[in-house]
Parts: sequence; C-alpha cells; structure tokens
Amino acid sequence: MSFAPANEGIAKLKPYQPGKPISELERELGMTDIVKLASNENPLGCSDKVKEAVAAELAEIGRYPDGGGFILKDQIHAQFGVAHDCITLGNGSNDLLEIFARAFVSDKDSVVYSQHAFAVYALVTQAINAEAIEVPAQGFSHDLDAMAAAIKDNTKLVFIANPNNPSGTYLSKKEIRELMSKIPRHVIVVLDGAYAEYVMEKDYDVDFSLVKEFDNIILTRTFSKAYGLAGIRLGWCYASPRVASILSRVKGPFNTNSLAQHMAIIALNDQDHIKMVTGQNKKNKEWFEGELTKLDIKFLPSYANFSFIKSTKTDAAKMSETLLENGIIVRQLDSYNLPHCLRITIGTMEDMKKTIKALENIS
Amino acid sequence: MSFAPANEGIAKLKPYQPGKPISELERELGMTDIVKLASNENPLGCSDKVKEAVAAELAEIGRYPDGGGFILKDQIHAQFGVAHDCITLGNGSNDLLEIFARAFVSDKDSVVYSQHAFAVYALVTQAINAEAIEVPAQGFSHDLDAMAAAIKDNTKLVFIANPNNPSGTYLSKKEIRELMSKIPRHVIVVLDGAYAEYVMEKDYDVDFSLVKEFDNIILTRTFSKAYGLAGIRLGWCYASPRVASILSRVKGPFNTNSLAQHMAIIALNDQDHIKMVTGQNKKNKEWFEGELTKLDIKFLPSYANFSFIKSTKTDAAKMSETLLENGIIVRQLDSYNLPHCLRITIGTMEDMKKTIKALENIS
Repeated sequence: MSFAPANEGIAKLKPYQPGKPISELERELGMTDIVKLASNENPLGCSDKVKEAVAAELAEIGRYPDGGGFILKDQIHAQFGVAHDCITLGNGSNDLLEIFARAFVSDKDSVVYSQHAFAVYALVTQAINAEAIEVPAQGFSHDLDAMAAAIKDNTKLVFIANPNNPSGTYLSKKEIRELMSKIPRHVIVVLDGAYAEYVMEKDYDVDFSLVKEFDNIILTRTFSKAYGLAGIRLGWCYASPRVASILSRVKGPFNTNSLAQHMAIIALNDQDHIKMVTGQNKKNKEWFEGELTKLDIKFLPSYANFSFIKSTKTDAAKMSETLLENGIIVRQLDSYNLPHCLRITIGTMEDMKKTIKALENIS
Repeated sequence: MSFAPANEGIAKLKPYQPGKPISELERELGMTDIVKLASNENPLGCSDKVKEAVAAELAEIGRYPDGGGFILKDQIHAQFGVAHDCITLGNGSNDLLEIFARAFVSDKDSVVYSQHAFAVYALVTQAINAEAIEVPAQGFSHDLDAMAAAIKDNTKLVFIANPNNPSGTYLSKKEIRELMSKIPRHVIVVLDGAYAEYVMEKDYDVDFSLVKEFDNIILTRTFSKAYGLAGIRLGWCYASPRVASILSRVKGPFNTNSLAQHMAIIALNDQDHIKMVTGQNKKNKEWFEGELTKLDIKFLPSYANFSFIKSTKTDAAKMSETLLENGIIVRQLDSYNLPHCLRITIGTMEDMKKTIKALENIS
C-alpha cells in the first residue's frame, strides 16, 4: 500500500480558495492602503457594544466554551422566536454545511445543488465522496423545477443559497413552498441564508416560518456578513428538533468559541446596528449600480451585499487587474466557472467611489 | 424511507460529554463561587499580553480570518523550528482529531486506540462508521506492544494520548520509537500532546524530532491547556509535508478564528508565562498529592495538570458528590468505563486547599 493514502473523495479535492487576506496582498504587492471588496465582508465591522463586551470575557478565556451555547441560544430565541432545541451552532456556517453532509450523506448517496451556487456545497459533497448532482442554473439563479426533477432515490441533501452567492439572486417563500411540495420528506433541504439580513423584499422568509411548515428544511444564518463578525467564526441553523438532535451528535463538542458566543449575544441585541448596516448597504449599492450603468458595465440586480458584474472574459480579467493595481481586491469567478463575471462587495461609500474611479480609467 | 435518516455511524453516536460550564452549574444548584476542576483548564488563564492585544484586533473583526494562518505559523516556526508547510491549524485539537479521521479513514477501515484514552478518539471513529479497535490498557497506560499487535490490514490510524487523559501517564521517546518500528508506514500514528507542556521528563519528545524520524507521525499541540486559552479554540499539528498537504484539503477554509490566531501569536511569544504556569502546576500538584497521601486516597503519579484518583465506585461517587456540594466540580469517569476513578484538575493553591478541606470531611 502506498504511503498514507487519503480517502477517495479527499485525494481529488481542491480546497476552497478564500479571498486573499489584506495582509497577504500587502506582502505580495508591497502596498499598503488596500481596499478588500472580495469576500462580502461588512465594511462597517461589528457593533461597538460587542467590542466593549470582549474585555470582560477575557478573564474567563482559560475556560472551555459552553459547547451547547445555552445563553446564545436564549438570545436567538428571544430575537427570532425559534426554540432552543431547534438551534445548532457552527464554527461559521461553513462548519454547519460540513456537518449537514456528514450527518445525512454517505458515499453511496447524492447531493443536489445548483450551478453557480456557493462553492462549498461541491466541496463538502466531494469530501465524503458522495455523488454531486449540479443542476444547470437559469439566468444565474436556481432552476427549482430542474432541481426537483434531478432528485434521485439516493439523494439525501439539497443545498440552496438564498440569496445566492455569487449571483445575488433570491427566492421567494412561495417559490420555496412549490419546490418543497415536489421533494420527498426524507430529503433534507438546506436554505443557506448567509446574506438573509440584506434582503428587503417582503416575500422572503423573514420570519423563519418555513421550518414550521417543512420539518426537512434547515435554515442557516451567519454572523459573518451583516453582523460584521467574520473573524470570530459563528453561524447557526434552525431545523426541526429531530434534525437538530442529529446535528448535535455530529458537531464538535466545542465547535464555537467563547468570545464568538459572547460577541454574538451582544451583536444580536443591537439590531439598530443591523438596520444601519443594511440601510447603508442598500444606499451604497444603489449608488454603485447607478455608476456601473453610466459606465455601461452590466450587472445583475443584487439582493445581497455585493454586485455581480457580467462582462466578457477579457474585460472581467482587465477590470480585476486594474482594480488590483489600484489596491482594490475583488473576486474573479473562474472557480465558479464564470470567468466573464466579477463579484464586488459593497464597501463604504469611499471604497465604492475609489472603485468607480478606477473603473472609469479603463473605459 | 424513514424521515431524514442519519448516516449509520452517526445514528448510534453518543456525543462527547464536556464538563459542565460554571454558569450551567450555578443555574442548576442556585450557587455562586463555584470551583471548576473538571476540564483540566489553566486556573491562571492566559498571558496578560494576550489580553492587551485583543482590543487592537477587534477593529478588523469584520474580516475573514487568514485561513492559512500565515503569521501564526511563522510564530510557531520561530518558537519550535517546525516548517511552515508541516503545520496545520485546528479549531481546537478536537477539530484536528476529526480531520485526521476524515482524511485517512473510510467506513471500510479501522482505527486503533487504547482503553481509557481520550474519549474523542472513539467518537471520531464512530462518526465515520469505521471499525474501532480498543486495546486493553496496562496499568491505566497505553500497552504499546498490544497496540502494535492489534493493527490489521485495514488499519489506517492509531491514536495515542501522550500524556494520557484521563490517567496522566506518559510515554518516552524511546517507547514511541519502538512502537513505530513495528507499525507499517502507511498507518498514521497521532501523538496527541494536549498536555505536552506540563511534562518535565527529559525522555519526552520536547523537540518535536519524532516527525523528522517518522513521516507517518502527526504530533498535536493545543492552546487550551498550559497556554490558558481553552475559550478561543486553537490547536495545531506537525506532520510531514505530504500528510500536512492532505490535512489542508480536509480542514474548513476558515476553521480557526482571527482572535484566536492573534492571541496565540502573543501567547507563544510569552514563554515566561508558560514557565510560570507549569512551575506552579508542579508545585500545587505535589502539595495536593501529598495531602491525598495523608488522607489515604490513592492516585496515579501524573505528568499533566490533573490528578487521577483510584478508589472504589462508592467512594468515587461519594467524593464527587461531597465536592459538588462544596461547589467544586471534578470529573467522574463513568464514560471512560472507570466508575471507581476521578479526575481532578490542578487549580490554584486556594482551589486545592478548598478541595482537600472538603475531602477531609468525608474521611
């Protein structure tokens, strides 16, 4: 036998390529003052109240976290009315996506997700060597009819990004309900709501009611986007008690850290910050989209905190390169098989003005 | 098909039972001032320098962590001389133990570990539905000859806790070398060094040299014990570049958080704190063991930061109960199939005096 052979799925796995951290780019380019608009982070950061609360928590940092996250779950319950035993915490929602696959899918099963959806769905599927069923997208959005039709006898999990990353499209509650009516009850449907807070449309599932209607739905939420806490790694999901009980067996005993739990509690309690953040995002996005239109740069209407630019392969590469030369990191989408597209996070107004100024010099 | 069937290994899994957090026990008992000696945490917490450094980092907490942990790996390299591409970071070493199993073991393979070793080895094995080969312990320590003999054709992984939790025994470099000479090279041997910093014996692998001798060894280290940072979730491991490259494919892209990375860098840099912590641990442990001897309570000589009490089942339960009534949480070891034993973390001198006082009232 060869030396330390990796599991079959693992051996072929190409790791997720995160956006470059600013520090790495500064090292590479020998530049400072870099604007990072590549990872859909919140340019306003987290609530000041969170920062104030950290110092007190440090006195207890030598202790293990409460693995169950009792007080945080209390706060989630108070904020959104979802029951304690329906909540599972994750080390970022990425951890939860891995947990879902490990809990429900074996290497004899299949997983359904859409073309151009979040890259991690494919990765978690491959890591357990399960069959990946990628359903062609329709106008860069999920084709729900085709996804329902693609489900096979061995399908255990369906991943849906709502809103979708990287295209910024969203699905209404009605569309999800129609999909669910066609899906067997033993198949788990994950509605990944990483960007949920940014959606202002009334027909979006803002009240978490879909889980009560369908006990095979898992809704995920994250503190990495609107809450401005990508650095602490915290996500959570809401599912029926039976599903949540399975997830609790798979998650690591201490998968979320104490500071993250503590900061998330304070952050949840400061919903004014979320209103401010999402309001500002809307304003800056509208301004940015207006300027893109003036420059004749094509984009999809986005319901999240980023713009999805459609162009030609040459133009997208050129835009990205010019922006990088100006110290602005955006996300090229080659790994999403979208080499003609770019994803640009909505930053502060200053960031967006800098971006538009750089783009003007191309045209 | 039944509703949302869990994977085979998962369905039977009983989750790891962490020590109760102080907050939960206070809620349950309506007490305050509780002393927790149940999870081998560091009663002195982390270096003050770590605390000071956190505030600055919070400004950037809206950003994703550097998934690769470049600067932290630099610091580990500077401290211990292990190469960058041989290091993998984990969300606590628990995360690493899961990663090892997922990387190298399928449900057709087997994993070897010792009776009375760290409980998580059995859990990660069961989670992937692999065959668990538990080798009987010898005097509460690993029986290395028996472990080597237990390896089968389908064995992919051997877990060894060194020092062992919960018994506190340790294995010398020579003993490990002898074991390795009997193990096929395609089998990965994990040497879990969660308590490594506490071992003062010269024949222990203090210089990380075993990985250079055997490219199928993985050495793990954690910031949760001597470094006093259990709350941040950070562990790391050192292995040959080929093994590390496989691990990097399996780990989540952002499995370690920014604050953890930042605090770990500062903590590594403050080795005086580690000297102080391990010195104090030695002193308090010797005092505590002396008092246990006076009370005629039997224990194993421990090389870590806890005492392993051997008694009868009735006496162990009674001790634990009395300590709990006095607001002292220790770890009963029923889940380790050691109902006649207790594990008591070495706390501050004040904690240990309080513990001895409570134990005196039993005798």
